[in-house]
Amino acid sequence: MTEYKIALVGFGGVNRGLAQLIAERNAAWQAALGLSLKIVGVTDLFLGSIVDRNGLDAGQLVALPAEKGAFARLPGGTAEAFNETVIKQSGADIVAEATFTNPVDGEPAATFCRWALESGIHVVTTNKGPIALHGSELKALARRNNVAFEYEGAVMSGTPVIRLARQALAGAEIQGFEGILNGTSNYVLTRMKEGLSFDAAVAQAQQLGYAEADPSADVEGYDVRLKVVILANELLNAQLRVSDVACSGISAITAHDIAQASESGHCWKLIGAAQREADGSIRASVEARLLPAAHPLAAINGATNAVSFNTALVGTVTVSGPGAGRIETAFALLSDIIALHTTDRQ
Amino acid sequence: MTEYKIALVGFGGVNRGLAQLIAERNAAWQAALGLSLKIVGVTDLFLGSIVDRNGLDAGQLVALPAEKGAFARLPGGTAEAFNETVIKQSGADIVAEATFTNPVDGEPAATFCRWALESGIHVVTTNKGPIALHGSELKALARRNNVAFEYEGAVMSGTPVIRLARQALAGAEIQGFEGILNGTSNYVLTRMKEGLSFDAAVAQAQQLGYAEADPSADVEGYDVRLKVVILANELLNAQLRVSDVACSGISAITAHDIAQASESGHCWKLIGAAQREADGSIRASVEARLLPAAHPLAAINGATNAVSFNTALVGTVTVSGPGAGRIETAFALLSDIIALHTTDRQ
Repeated sequence: MTEYKIALVGFGGVNRGLAQLIAERNAAWQAALGLSLKIVGVTDLFLGSIVDRNGLDAGQLVALPAEKGAFARLPGGTAEAFNETVIKQSGADIVAEATFTNPVDGEPAATFCRWALESGIHVVTTNKGPIALHGSELKALARRNNVAFEYEGAVMSGTPVIRLARQALAGAEIQGFEGILNGTSNYVLTRMKEGLSFDAAVAQAQQLGYAEADPSADVEGYDVRLKVVILANELLNAQLRVSDVACSGISAITAHDIAQASESGHCWKLIGAAQREADGSIRASVEARLLPAAHPLAAINGATNAVSFNTALVGTVTVSGPGAGRIETAFALLSDIIALHTTDRQ
Repeated sequence: MTEYKIALVGFGGVNRGLAQLIAERNAAWQAALGLSLKIVGVTDLFLGSIVDRNGLDAGQLVALPAEKGAFARLPGGTAEAFNETVIKQSGADIVAEATFTNPVDGEPAATFCRWALESGIHVVTTNKGPIALHGSELKALARRNNVAFEYEGAVMSGTPVIRLARQALAGAEIQGFEGILNGTSNYVLTRMKEGLSFDAAVAQAQQLGYAEADPSADVEGYDVRLKVVILANELLNAQLRVSDVACSGISAITAHDIAQASESGHCWKLIGAAQREADGSIRASVEARLLPAAHPLAAINGATNAVSFNTALVGTVTVSGPGAGRIETAFALLSDIIALHTTDRQ
């Protein structure tokens, strides 16, 4: 049995979910997984920070209200976010990075990852920014420091995609992929198929908490573009930058387009895709595509996400599941920890 | 780079497919996977057997006609199937077992597996019989002899399911699964939905080579039942025997049933399922079920297979892909070899 000391960077829904899982399941994990987690530090720009090398009470952390400076209420806590101290000085074996995604430069999350990796600390993250924008640098840094850098949750939250491709499909020769990688836009298209206008469907997604007040990152494809970069670089050994991926969204699709597609048994989906061309180059795109009913992604409805891998040896293999959710995404961090534990142990 | 010496037991479509992959890709695997395969023996009840500890020419083996005693044509070959010699005396590190499935007692494949495991030789197999009927004995035998016993291809050929659950979903707390695990019966139901009678759909499946002259193993659910036993024992730690699984098929479903289901937006699927009950027991079944259109298995059409895992932490995750095919199933053997190589290496 291995006990890992873990520092939580960002204490929004995801790391709060992980703390909740730790509070509820740490004892069961010892038997089932051969590992347990001890939270030695938490930092959050809004809530402040706290360090205790002897271990913090996960349940107490979860119960803390989401109020500015709330960590100051705990003994030893402070309203200031001492990120560097928590990452480098808490004695953590693993940093779980789950701050907000900055699609422009991936900061400050990329710096948090760098600090940990440079200090010989494993990093698990669900944050698209650092991987899409600084992935090869951070992977190299992890290799040099002989630590893990895992980010299964960055693409489809808890639904496995990177590890599925890397492990279970190793040797299958992945030649490309197509994915429904944004639950909000897929929800909007699904509601439009049921008769709503684009604006009404977006309003409904906003009411349900799927879409932001400004929904453009979701409906214009920018969120999917980051995920395509991550998957193409991971699965196809591409060296894509965000600007290499042609990107359009679904905001130009009208109720008439949707109705016309339905008549001919087709449906519109926002597809993030990449494939290896005959000359070895990688072509990647984000765009609305008209799929025939028999396409494996045609029946993926609502907020569900899915990826179809096109392989030389097994044809098309598709995985689908939730693409968001507090506990689902926290599970992605757990699955990263299990993976690094499995490698550690052998 | 590791070179594994491999003995092929059974030389029908699957192991012929593996030999073809070896002939075409061994050099590429050295760079991409860090392993290569040298065929040191082949045995087949119909074709005979051949051993060469220095390695057989994979391309020459693939080119051999499927005629009785054909191995006698090769230098050192014989028309007799010296199974025990090939398994125990060829110097193999790995036995790839791909003989026919015997649903009654799993023989002679189970004996072939025992011979290899007892001799300290890894076994990879695509054969449902030994695992469904003797799985716990053979797994224990492998553990005692410190060798791998891998059978990813026994459930959905090359589409990953066992390793997906074991690795990528480790810690997700799988509580049950539902699967479309027989391509023939799913093809028949798909054609019936398009208007064919049961008999006409079966005849068409037979014409396409999906269904045997006697289609009962497929349409009465017996094939699925073996797969449910394998998955329930693997994913839910059950100790099921075949007789523990209630089993009915699709032969009683009429064109009228199908039409009625379609009217209400439902469809009939042959579902193999198991779930953990509140008291910890495992309930497993094979039966035709009426699925609503939104069910993740409702849109799995034709000969495609799929499994939905129901988990505590990620909700429902579904994987779909081919459930048969010569090269697809040969890939399952390769994926088992990659998995044992990865474990070996660490």
